[in-house]
Order: sequence, then structure tokens, then C-alpha cells
Amino acid sequence: MSVVWNFNALPAHLHYAIGVDGGGTSTRARVVHRSGVVVGEGKAGASGLMQGTPQAWRHIAQAITLAVQGRLQVDWPVPTPANCALGLGLAGANNADWYAECLAANPGYTRLVLASDAVTALLGAHQGAPGALVIMGTGAIGLALQANGRHTTTGGWGFPCGDEGSGADLGLQAVNLTQRAVDGRHASTPLTRDVYETLGGTPESLLAWCGAARQFEYATLAPKVFAHAAHDAEAARLLARAAQSLEALATALDPAHTLPLAVAGSIAQRLLPQLSPAIAQRVVPAQGDAMDGALALCFQ
Amino acid sequence: MSVVWNFNALPAHLHYAIGVDGGGTSTRARVVHRSGVVVGEGKAGASGLMQGTPQAWRHIAQAITLAVQGRLQVDWPVPTPANCALGLGLAGANNADWYAECLAANPGYTRLVLASDAVTALLGAHQGAPGALVIMGTGAIGLALQANGRHTTTGGWGFPCGDEGSGADLGLQAVNLTQRAVDGRHASTPLTRDVYETLGGTPESLLAWCGAARQFEYATLAPKVFAHAAHDAEAARLLARAAQSLEALATALDPAHTLPLAVAGSIAQRLLPQLSPAIAQRVVPAQGDAMDGALALCFQ
Repeated sequence: MSVVWNFNALPAHLHYAIGVDGGGTSTRARVVHRSGVVVGEGKAGASGLMQGTPQAWRHIAQAITLAVQGRLQVDWPVPTPANCALGLGLAGANNADWYAECLAANPGYTRLVLASDAVTALLGAHQGAPGALVIMGTGAIGLALQANGRHTTTGGWGFPCGDEGSGADLGLQAVNLTQRAVDGRHASTPLTRDVYETLGGTPESLLAWCGAARQFEYATLAPKVFAHAAHDAEAARLLARAAQSLEALATALDPAHTLPLAVAGSIAQRLLPQLSPAIAQRVVPAQGDAMDGALALCFQ
Repeated sequence: MSVVWNFNALPAHLHYAIGVDGGGTSTRARVVHRSGVVVGEGKAGASGLMQGTPQAWRHIAQAITLAVQGRLQVDWPVPTPANCALGLGLAGANNADWYAECLAANPGYTRLVLASDAVTALLGAHQGAPGALVIMGTGAIGLALQANGRHTTTGGWGFPCGDEGSGADLGLQAVNLTQRAVDGRHASTPLTRDVYETLGGTPESLLAWCGAARQFEYATLAPKVFAHAAHDAEAARLLARAAQSLEALATALDPAHTLPLAVAGSIAQRLLPQLSPAIAQRVVPAQGDAMDGALALCFQ
């Protein structure tokens, strides 16, 4: 079982297949001509459905336009909703209301398949074959296609209650440590001094920042944890905790350790060297990305 | 140094002193006639300033009206802003913008003093004398008046990053444990089964609840942690962690353990039996409540 682009199975009026990976910060589109030639890729702003369907469709159209700009052969038509198959992997598509809203705003695609960006990432990583995937970026989720054909999920419960080990969670833990250093419950460390200065350097500025910050703002602080880990035992402890969270997501997906495991996302990539041998020996490179997985949706 | 109601120091046209304790769920007012007679107490809806100044003043007026209704002696005037001194201890008054907004909306009190509800609780607990106070309810904060006259604060950084051990934090930890039980990262326990059923009993309902829940909603689950602690090791572990958080707030306020320590708030009261001897031996009953502290503001 692997992902193939069987253009012969698509109606003749569909000249292109398009795979889109859309999240809370950006949208990427890959366009393939039915000859099998990859036309190009384009990038635009966020299309996560939690930020609204109109913005999502606007950025999807922009990313597609940029993907083909100046790259069409003379006998190829300009891509339009009428002559393209579109596979969308969008953050938030697992929410039933947003899913329906997005499809209702379809600007005219006759072949349109929508899934969450995590599902398309899994489909891309193992080319549709059984396997597990842990994604740790701003959030944290694990997915697997089991050998028996079942799909399973771990984590992905969202900020602030779930998504342990994610960028937002690392940032939250770093700020909490800083709060305790500021009010005398903990010794200050290089990490807490850095976070404190970055957030204004006074108790009042820290309080105001915390009052306004959400998932994205906390995630912007995660790189500081990595930057200080070599010389700050508390930062190193936070990374060890995040690596354990990654392992917990992977283990619950596949307790017997039989599935190949791909990892994606900026945080997961940086945690790879810290994984235990039992988990590390399962890790394989992803065979494709979430745009590949979204392209595969076009042919399902 | 102790709190006294020195009505002789107030202008003769002020017939009453009023102390108000206002938070995110209710407002309580205690009215004292200048003869020294406590007229009565009244209760109304929330007056925490994060919920807006107009609502705060509306509920303050309601609570005062209820406090005196049917309890005035024949030669006493009806209380009005012109003939009362008002001490307000309101949640959110430590925010500079909300503080200014509340005073700007003063309906005519010529003697008006505003402080945060934590400050008035401290003033009430030790009658203005040096001492420490830890409040753990929906949030968690420690305050002290040091022997040298300095005021210090620990915790109180807010949900979700701070306020460890608070009701909202206990609820958050209980839901996180439930998420891990549902997706296979942790064994289910009596607590997680209870939380899961309460929040709808399906992964979808749990995801939807977490997407909408804020500080108050998480705090409503804290009683379940106490209810299961006797027969659920995980619930007991969460309470032990909360008790450690309480101790950390108290210790940072007074590392030498010389100040008397009062505790307030529903969570702190229930954690008292779990405190270590070093902390427990410092605990004294509060001499007065936050309304007493707010009354004291009238005479400062």
C-alpha cells in the first residue's frame, strides 16, 4: 500500500492535482500537472481553520497562484477551481463545525477532499503504509495507521491543558520557572534571566505579558530553552521532560514497537538526540511531507 | 499596630464606613455605623475588575443596599455615596488601568480607597500587624507585611502559567491526567473516569470542553480531586503537589519562619492537614476577613 498519483483515475477535465498543508502560521501548496510533472510550490499566510474559513481560502488561493507563477508550459491551461483536484490538510479540520464551514465555502472545486494537517502528514510520512508519526511544533500530537488498518491518535488535546512537550508547553514551563525565580520560590538561572529580560524585566511587565499571552506567544520562547540547555540544568530538565512526552506519545501509539516511526515539527527534530534507544531505533525518515499526503487525498 | 475604627478621625458628615470584598464570583459588603454598630452584611454578584467597572459598581451598590435593608435605626440616615466612607478590596485592582478606570467611575464617594482583594485579606487576617497570608481558591497568591514594614508578594501570576496548586490548576492537572488515560498514555483511575464522564464521556466531548474551558471551568473540577484522594493514588499525588505549592508560597514570603501565617480560600483550607510541621506550626487563625481589611482602608 503506497501513495500513487493515478491521474488516469481522475476525469479528463482535471489538469492538475494540488496538495495543501495549512496551519496556524503558514500555508504551502504543491501543484502537479497530470503529465506527472511537479509544477511548483507556493507559500502564503495561515489557513488554520480556527482563524476563520475566509482567510483560509484566501491564503490557499494565494499559495496556489505563487506555486504556478511563471512555471506553466505553453499547452497547459491556467489552474482554476474547475480544472484542479484539491487535497487540503488544514489545522482545525478535526473540528466538525469548522470542517463543514470550510467545505461550504468551496469556491468551485468539483474534486475536493479535506482532512486535518496531522492526517495528511501521516499519509505523507509513510506514503499511506502503516506507520506512526509524532508531530511536535507549537502543539504536540501522535498519529498512526495500524497494521490492521485502524487509525489511532495520542495527544493533540490543545493548549494549555494538553500538548505536553510542545513549543508552547516548553515556553509555558520556562515562564513559570521565571515567575518562581522573580518572587523568590526558585533560584534564578541563565534561562530565567533571559526570559525575564525578554518579557520586560519587571514584575509588572511579566504579569502583563502573561495576562495577554496565548499558545503562539509561549511557543516563541521555546528556542531559549534549547539555547540554554548546555549550561542551565533547569533548561536541560525541561528538554528531558519534553523528550519523555514525545516518547509517551510514540509508545502509546505502538506499545510493541513494531511500526516505523517518523517525527516532524521543529521541536521534535531538535529532541531526536535525546530519545531513548528503544524509541530511537524505530525512527525512520519521513518519505514525504504533508503536501504529499494532501496530494494523495486527490486520488483517494 | 492594629486596625481600629477611629470614626472621630472621619469628617462628621460621614455616617458609615463600608468594607467591600469583591472577586470573580461575588461581592460582599459590611456596613458599620459611626456609633460602632455593625449594621449588616450584603452579598451580590461579581465585582472583579477584569469583568468590567460598570458591573463592579453595580454589584457594590447592590451588596451595600442588601447590607442595610431593614436594619437602620430611626435616627440614622439612608447610606448614600455622600455620607459613607468606602473601602474596596477588589480582584484586579493591582492592574493599573483597571484601578484608574474604577476610580474614574466613582459614583460620588468623597472618601474612597481601593486596593486588591488580596491586600485587604492580608490587612484583615493580621489586623494590620506584620504577618503572612496564603490564599488558594480559584487562584493562588501569598502576601506578607514584613516586620520592617515592607509588603511582599509570591505567586498570583494567573492562569494558566502560574497559580500552582490553585483550584484551577488542580482541575487542569486532573483533566490532563484524563486526556492521557483516554489516549493510552496512562492507566485510567477513579478520578479520570469521573472527570471523563462529567465532561461528556467521549474523546470529542473532552476535546470540545478543553477548547472552551478557562480558569473558572477548570476550578469547578477541583472538588473531584479531593473526593477521590482517599482511594486514588494519582488524586492523592495532585493534592500533595498542591500542598507543596502552598508551602513554597509561604516559605518564599518568610524563609526564617518568624511571621504568623494565615491561610484563606477553599483549596488552602482543605490542604491544611497535609502541610509539613515547619509550615503548620506557623499557621494562626485569621483575625478578620477581607471585609474587615477593606473597612480598615476607610480609616487609613
